[in-house]
Amino acid sequence: MNKWLDEVAWNAEGLVPAIAQDATTGEVLTLAWMNREALTRTLEIGHAVYWSRSRRELWHKGATSGHFQRVLEIRMDCDADAILLRVESVGGIACHTGRRRCFYRRLEGEPGHQRWIATELVIEVPRRR
Amino acid sequence: MNKWLDEVAWNAEGLVPAIAQDATTGEVLTLAWMNREALTRTLEIGHAVYWSRSRRELWHKGATSGHFQRVLEIRMDCDADAILLRVESVGGIACHTGRRRCFYRRLEGEPGHQRWIATELVIEVPRRR
Repeated sequence: MNKWLDEVAWNAEGLVPAIAQDATTGEVLTLAWMNREALTRTLEIGHAVYWSRSRRELWHKGATSGHFQRVLEIRMDCDADAILLRVESVGGIACHTGRRRCFYRRLEGEPGHQRWIATELVIEVPRRR
Repeated sequence: MNKWLDEVAWNAEGLVPAIAQDATTGEVLTLAWMNREALTRTLEIGHAVYWSRSRRELWHKGATSGHFQRVLEIRMDCDADAILLRVESVGGIACHTGRRRCFYRRLEGEPGHQRWIATELVIEVPRRR
């Protein structure tokens, strides 16, 4: 019974964007992509599994770094074309740069002089991606 | 000076996904899409402006419903291919279905019997999209 999977509005590449939100702090940690297999695996193992568009393979987040995302809840939006995961961010580092979250840059500055400024420190220097 | 705009990794269609998060409650409200013009307009007017992929036009969210998203902060992720907005959700309704947020469905049920269940009530019956 995979009716729930068929209800997702997969895009032309068979993917859907998936947001991971820290269940404790509410921080938006990451936006990544899933295909049917990634979402199925996520549900099966209780960890976020994505589809790496660059490597073109399933990506069990944390498999090399130890920074898994334990999935507590899976949500879908009104158009069925976006997924929201409430997760426990194991180790408190969700970004491959070693920061708490991927959204570490904020647009700052006067009109005409905006810049992206890093607002979060690297907690742990990553060994590899 | 639009260097900050050039730093966004626009996809092949010139778009980037943009998450809107309620600045007060931390709830993830919507995932929509922006092109360069939408992001520029968002910055200029301080309200979220998206690109409607279905209507193929700029979409000033709330222009018909009154449920604007006042933008307090614009963030970008590590790969520069996703935007995060911290917003004030005017009227407390972000979804065109009249709910607080678009992510109103949760996956529930035993393995093999999962279903998407609506967990949020319609606050205001929408007149039109």
